[in-house]
Amino acid sequence: MVISRSDIDSFEKRYRTNLINCLSGFKSINLIATRSHEGIANLGLYSQVIHVGANPPLQGVLFRPAVVPRHTLENIYATREFTINQVHRSFYEKAHWTSARWDENEFNKVGLTEEYTENNHAPYVKESAVKALMAFKERHVIQANQTTLLVGEIKELIIQDDLIAADGFLDLEKAETVTVSGLDKYHTTQALSRLEYAKPDKFPEPLSE
Amino acid sequence: MVISRSDIDSFEKRYRTNLINCLSGFKSINLIATRSHEGIANLGLYSQVIHVGANPPLQGVLFRPAVVPRHTLENIYATREFTINQVHRSFYEKAHWTSARWDENEFNKVGLTEEYTENNHAPYVKESAVKALMAFKERHVIQANQTTLLVGEIKELIIQDDLIAADGFLDLEKAETVTVSGLDKYHTTQALSRLEYAKPDKFPEPLSE
Repeated sequence: MVISRSDIDSFEKRYRTNLINCLSGFKSINLIATRSHEGIANLGLYSQVIHVGANPPLQGVLFRPAVVPRHTLENIYATREFTINQVHRSFYEKAHWTSARWDENEFNKVGLTEEYTENNHAPYVKESAVKALMAFKERHVIQANQTTLLVGEIKELIIQDDLIAADGFLDLEKAETVTVSGLDKYHTTQALSRLEYAKPDKFPEPLSE
Repeated sequence: MVISRSDIDSFEKRYRTNLINCLSGFKSINLIATRSHEGIANLGLYSQVIHVGANPPLQGVLFRPAVVPRHTLENIYATREFTINQVHRSFYEKAHWTSARWDENEFNKVGLTEEYTENNHAPYVKESAVKALMAFKERHVIQANQTTLLVGEIKELIIQDDLIAADGFLDLEKAETVTVSGLDKYHTTQALSRLEYAKPDKFPEPLSE
């Protein structure tokens, strides 16, 4: 079916939102945690965390336009710190629940646990097996719709030991990390293969590990 | 295991690349196609396509620093057009193969097919069941590592009819759209549930469809 731009613009809002949110394919889903200078923790669910680079180690997050108060962004600008925490099958409904309009600390409301090392002001999510402490680096406002791309640099990682392979690769399937399609559909995964580095003279085969 | 920033900086390059690429969770994987003014098509594989907004309908792509010639970016700047095409189980090895250093048209090299409607200069990938024709809108250079976020606006969609639900949601599992972890591991998915809109007074339940 060919869908023109004028078709898209004429769709009912919910229909358009569902359709356009599905186009990019499966998305990462992460909890971002912050804490205000006053010590109030905040937790939010984001499907727009993106790998930006490995050296220096950088991740980005796209934030919707700030038409309502965004505690996460406010805390990041004030404290320069946040954490990114992978969501697993065991607590994905709780993670989803953080997106309700809570007045204060979503950790307490949904039943997730703040975790602190000696290095972090922003809490980690204790239940997450793969998580990063981030320092705010820069932001870019997308002119087309006033979303904000925020880029952070990794300060520290906490990773469940048995997920790390000898070559640094993480077994996200073992961790039962979930992925999301559209706004609200959650999925686990099944591995097809790791493929070898692509070369012109040879059809790619599974990596021999 | 707590991994400090100095640990990360001391890791062997391949180990660090694998580890950091796994942190954001499962990633979308899409083929981006362009065509030069001279009519030479180009096809590249990207794990950094991101939903930017539904109204206007926008998607973004993060491109690595242009230290080697990037035909995709050059063609986009010259022609202002590109397509984003989901990758499915049936051709994910061919998609992976596009990342080899080909001299010219990757469609021919890997065995994928250019598709044109009356509206596109840049080719769609015929084998893809969910694809978008994009107009270049704006770009932002991430200062921290010179990657480029390119934002495009949707001009047209081609979607396999039986994937679209009554509410606009796409069945990416039926399409066997793949997701990737790290640099090179491909996965299919299994649905857990669609969850209802989150409200403070009620633990989220599966959406009644």
